[in-house]
Amino acid sequence: MTPTLAELGEAELLKRLARFAPPGQFDDDTACLGSDARPLLVNTDVLVDGIHFSDATTTAVDVGWRAVAANLSDLAASGAVSIDGITVALVAPGTTPWSWVEGVYDGISTALEHHGGTLLGGDCSSGSHRLLSITALGRLGPLRLLRNAAQPGDVLISSGPHGLSRLGLALLQKDPLLQTTRLSAALQELAISQHQRPRPRLDALTQLLACKPAELPWRAGGTDSSDGLLTAVRGLCSSSGTGAQLDRSQLPRPQEWPPGDLWDRWCLAGGEDFELVLSLPPVWADALEQTLPSCRRFGRMTDQTGSIVWGDDNKPILDAGFDHFASS
Amino acid sequence: MTPTLAELGEAELLKRLARFAPPGQFDDDTACLGSDARPLLVNTDVLVDGIHFSDATTTAVDVGWRAVAANLSDLAASGAVSIDGITVALVAPGTTPWSWVEGVYDGISTALEHHGGTLLGGDCSSGSHRLLSITALGRLGPLRLLRNAAQPGDVLISSGPHGLSRLGLALLQKDPLLQTTRLSAALQELAISQHQRPRPRLDALTQLLACKPAELPWRAGGTDSSDGLLTAVRGLCSSSGTGAQLDRSQLPRPQEWPPGDLWDRWCLAGGEDFELVLSLPPVWADALEQTLPSCRRFGRMTDQTGSIVWGDDNKPILDAGFDHFASS
Repeated sequence: MTPTLAELGEAELLKRLARFAPPGQFDDDTACLGSDARPLLVNTDVLVDGIHFSDATTTAVDVGWRAVAANLSDLAASGAVSIDGITVALVAPGTTPWSWVEGVYDGISTALEHHGGTLLGGDCSSGSHRLLSITALGRLGPLRLLRNAAQPGDVLISSGPHGLSRLGLALLQKDPLLQTTRLSAALQELAISQHQRPRPRLDALTQLLACKPAELPWRAGGTDSSDGLLTAVRGLCSSSGTGAQLDRSQLPRPQEWPPGDLWDRWCLAGGEDFELVLSLPPVWADALEQTLPSCRRFGRMTDQTGSIVWGDDNKPILDAGFDHFASS
Repeated sequence: MTPTLAELGEAELLKRLARFAPPGQFDDDTACLGSDARPLLVNTDVLVDGIHFSDATTTAVDVGWRAVAANLSDLAASGAVSIDGITVALVAPGTTPWSWVEGVYDGISTALEHHGGTLLGGDCSSGSHRLLSITALGRLGPLRLLRNAAQPGDVLISSGPHGLSRLGLALLQKDPLLQTTRLSAALQELAISQHQRPRPRLDALTQLLACKPAELPWRAGGTDSSDGLLTAVRGLCSSSGTGAQLDRSQLPRPQEWPPGDLWDRWCLAGGEDFELVLSLPPVWADALEQTLPSCRRFGRMTDQTGSIVWGDDNKPILDAGFDHFASS
């Protein structure tokens, strides 16, 4: 009997699909077309109504903005220093109001105006469910950030705090989990804005490139944290054959973040923060901390292949990732 | 009140979406990134279960093949002389058997082996409906085929016959319309093969480039006939501000094609034949007829903007196009 996709799970599905592509091609979210003077990075992401967004928490304009941000975040996390543009495949039922589609494209345009690139074209079709499939194209700079370029001894550092997007979602959903915790108005506002209008960290990549110590080669491990911080670290480890030790006290918590297991879990596995998660030689990490105040050092890479543990007691950090198929 | 997408129809929807892109960007199915020595052509197409394919008439392997063929056909009809590869966004319910997905990717791989290019990556997500969104990337040769490059006095010529794919679908569906017509086994086999395994006419583009008379500039109007021959002609006319006169006796009917209105309609508007539809200076059309035996001259471009008529009586040819939204 052939298994269903839900039985396989997303990770196993991607592993099986990778066999249809050249070796290593599926290790990273982008592909690189390298035959030109300015190699091109390509990334495709799909956003499905009810899974990646919903009318309850996301306006049409925010759907468009987030779709662009998710794609450009993958490009930034691969080393893209400029954005050519995107193509958009839109699927929606015939009953969909034009105003919703117009809102989505307004959001797309606004995001492209902020981050560069134009709408290159696309396709549309009717279908029972609203969804967007976006392919983004950008130009590689001097450094190709790869998951498999992480090395033992590297510092784990992220371009910003984690958990805000998950908190923003909980606030928008009026999640009862929040009833017992007092949160400042500033934190609430920041969290909702991070959920609705995440920013791809092209600016952080610029800083990373600018501050490289001259004596170091162009080598750094990197990915983004769209599927959560822990999933990002796991991706670095599994692609590069390394392990990671995380410092519990130095988790990249947002300012004024409440203490407790729930909050640490949201920081580790909330997802959709779209920060860069980097594996850097220590002196490069030092330089980045000097130039990028938002960045957070939270652990180090080890030679213990596949082992992701807390630094204080060496206990494994449990998987709390999100599987797009298991829940369906 | 905002209209629904079904009320707008596909053409009006695309017109409205084009306002979000640079002027002219939506005139053709591909975008061109031109800053390099080898400009890149980009095309995105989405195929939805129940609209573009169905389990009743299309195996999983054929779904994958057809998805690649549809995208590469757009690249060929824009002037791509080589294919870099494709990204694939796959959406399917968690209950989908792995064997179906494996079949689709087998079909994708086989098509890429035939036509060039590799699987560059992509994304997958669960969703209530199966669909594929593919973005294809290729390199522009010496001629950018554009819809708006058609000119009055040009010859209308297609790279092959039209109607076979529609007949193949009718045969697979055991359409009662066919009960009164005897068809040769050869025609039936050809039609089913054209429906299940259409071929993007990259070979015809090669011939077109090779046979250009030296005295002519690199200028030709072109598109593909994925949405039907008449829709292709209408696209050339509306983008270039021209009209067209079609020769009823010279319609690009397949060999042994039965006479009659139904059969002419399938030839004009059946769709999914994926041939090149070209607007060429007469001497270039003559040269192409010499080198490409499959090609068919079937009319000429006029200066009667937007008027598409039969050459014998100047009567307008009625719209029989297919709207993806109106039917939903």
